Amino acid sequence: MQSAPVTELFNVLAPAEAFERLRPYLAGPTGTERVPTASALGRILAEELAAPGDLPTFPRSTMDGFAVRAADTFGASDGLPAYLNVVGEVLMGSPPERSPGVGEAMRIATGGMLPEGADAVVMVEHTQEVDSSTVEVLRPVAPGENVIRIGEDVREGDPLLARGRILRSQDLGGLLAMGITELLVARRLTVGIVSGGDEVVPPDTRPGPGQIRDINSYTLAALVERTGHSPARLGIVPDVYEQLEQAARRGLAKCDVLILSAGSSVSTRDMTAQVIGSLGEPGVLVHGVSLKPGKPTILAFAQGKPVFGLPGNPVSCMVTFDLFVAPALYLLCGCPRRPPSQAIAARLTRNVASEPGREDYFQVKLETRDGSLWAAPVFGKSNLIYTLVKADGMVKIELDQGGLSEGDWVQVILF
Amino acid sequence: MQSAPVTELFNVLAPAEAFERLRPYLAGPTGTERVPTASALGRILAEELAAPGDLPTFPRSTMDGFAVRAADTFGASDGLPAYLNVVGEVLMGSPPERSPGVGEAMRIATGGMLPEGADAVVMVEHTQEVDSSTVEVLRPVAPGENVIRIGEDVREGDPLLARGRILRSQDLGGLLAMGITELLVARRLTVGIVSGGDEVVPPDTRPGPGQIRDINSYTLAALVERTGHSPARLGIVPDVYEQLEQAARRGLAKCDVLILSAGSSVSTRDMTAQVIGSLGEPGVLVHGVSLKPGKPTILAFAQGKPVFGLPGNPVSCMVTFDLFVAPALYLLCGCPRRPPSQAIAARLTRNVASEPGREDYFQVKLETRDGSLWAAPVFGKSNLIYTLVKADGMVKIELDQGGLSEGDWVQVILF
Repeated sequence: MQSAPVTELFNVLAPAEAFERLRPYLAGPTGTERVPTASALGRILAEELAAPGDLPTFPRSTMDGFAVRAADTFGASDGLPAYLNVVGEVLMGSPPERSPGVGEAMRIATGGMLPEGADAVVMVEHTQEVDSSTVEVLRPVAPGENVIRIGEDVREGDPLLARGRILRSQDLGGLLAMGITELLVARRLTVGIVSGGDEVVPPDTRPGPGQIRDINSYTLAALVERTGHSPARLGIVPDVYEQLEQAARRGLAKCDVLILSAGSSVSTRDMTAQVIGSLGEPGVLVHGVSLKPGKPTILAFAQGKPVFGLPGNPVSCMVTFDLFVAPALYLLCGCPRRPPSQAIAARLTRNVASEPGREDYFQVKLETRDGSLWAAPVFGKSNLIYTLVKADGMVKIELDQGGLSEGDWVQVILF
Repeated sequence: MQSAPVTELFNVLAPAEAFERLRPYLAGPTGTERVPTASALGRILAEELAAPGDLPTFPRSTMDGFAVRAADTFGASDGLPAYLNVVGEVLMGSPPERSPGVGEAMRIATGGMLPEGADAVVMVEHTQEVDSSTVEVLRPVAPGENVIRIGEDVREGDPLLARGRILRSQDLGGLLAMGITELLVARRLTVGIVSGGDEVVPPDTRPGPGQIRDINSYTLAALVERTGHSPARLGIVPDVYEQLEQAARRGLAKCDVLILSAGSSVSTRDMTAQVIGSLGEPGVLVHGVSLKPGKPTILAFAQGKPVFGLPGNPVSCMVTFDLFVAPALYLLCGCPRRPPSQAIAARLTRNVASEPGREDYFQVKLETRDGSLWAAPVFGKSNLIYTLVKADGMVKIELDQGGLSEGDWVQVILF
């Protein structure tokens, strides 16, 4: 270990600038596959979709009532109803058996196909049946009223969904409504996670003195999973250059993205940076970010794949995953904008100081006081995992803010 | 079909009141299973967890520097440094090989085990090495400074996580840090979905005149999946009482929860209510909610399981799933509070009217104008699936509100 200030961090970048250094390398999608539409929830669309036909394909009633010629109802009122002959009923799922003529009506249910000749539907609530073949209409309807026209939902050739869309429940419904039962989507990525540290042992091992159980590779794996991808935990590697380099090379060869969760001492972080630098061109793009926690983050690109060196403590690890790894995974899948973080507004219970020129994140717990929501900072040394477990979310202090004051409204990013 | 106003909806309840009728029946968890902690992301904890030991189990340094007796540094400054003898180095992952005495220091890295005798760590930045065995300390440290004490993160016996907790990435990390590698969680539920309607055909079929493809059972299946459970699509059933009843009975027997996505006409909705009423005690608890869209919703309980009759159009289907089915699924898993919906604040681009005494939901698209976020209502007849596809979220108009005005700040519930 050297006592002199270190080679790292001589030129730290703001988090957004740092990410911009990596962004040009992340044009996705990395790979695609065809999947059934019904199983595509949360996947990222890798094709441009246009409507193969009109929806609906026939004019549909939106009400229970009577299919009529609108002109026959003009002027109708409670006092002076229009009398129409009921000449049949439209059955659901079938074309109407006849067309009502002038002065005629057919019973129709919501979703039924409007018969030819009819151009509107009178709601049943605005009618009175006189006998089985005569109905009084008590309100006029305009042509097209209570009817969905052919193509009113979507017209043939209309753009449906753009490439890069994150597919939601209703998107799947909409595609299946058009008969689109298969989709081209971005392949799920495999994200390799190498955990470094002489002191780290697997969770099912009883740690000896000076040893701790592996937290980060499991927390990171869960974060990767939450983003919709497949984590590959590549084991715990001791702080020996050759071993770390070998693990990184192997991991990079078999995964789409590699994360090295480095030890937390300066010497092991330096070793991580050297290993990442050795993996190929262009190599390390960013080493050090004006961010707390998370300053020693490394962003790199080698062998056509992004490589992240994340700080060793759990809090930094979560913050930097969210700021750098998650958006990179979306870009690699061809999705230009990640979904917004889940956030909720609350007022701060106390002052929180910050250094201008640095983005700060701190953990908070949400509390309800007098019916309004408050965010109480949960402070703790950054190696404590339970400050994260106890917290409901994080609050960001912007680069140019000196701090936040008690009572300030803040956005709590839930995690 | 009858033209007279119908048997349903004579006594509609506010959505919250309606759900309260069902809530007493939903004490979970319905079933539990043991899973590896590493695979428990998003699962609901079914046991109360306390710390099996202290964390950390040894005093750890939070900085790179020198383990010292704090008293040896008192009064130290740039002008008058304290001189200490460096008597060794603490290796990561091992107990220290010796204890520094008075006037002595040991090199230590972040995460290293504090040697006996030492009670603080001086950051390397506050030291100057004179030679390999002497260091100048330029700032005093207090006892405990830059050290995590035994049990400072968690003490043996401390409550860790409560029953009903939805497990997050960092929770898994925290549990694994304590060596808790298996958990008791609520079993995933099987949610049966029966789609009704003479006019409905499967998505891979070309609909004939009057026919439409099944949207709702796929949208509902995706919503069930998004809530962490297993959808079981039980097929499309024609509007024939006996067939619907048989499908409902079979579905209820093999699933934990049953959803009937009824046709949209009054007569088929009545049939759905009758079928649900026939399934067992207590039967239909709510029939009709002061909600738009979603008025004809049915909440029921039979054979020890909740049964939902959801309206046939896609928009109502999504709204009512979110208001009634999703919270029921959380309660059935023993989670008292579902996670908050993802919401974002925006200003309304135009006035939206509503009827007081009814909860209204309308779809909006988000737009950025002059750097601030606006919500533009996407209106459309409620049978149009593409109003949902085009929308980014929903806005709620409260029961007692007459409407919303242009420029009002609203919470957009993203979906």
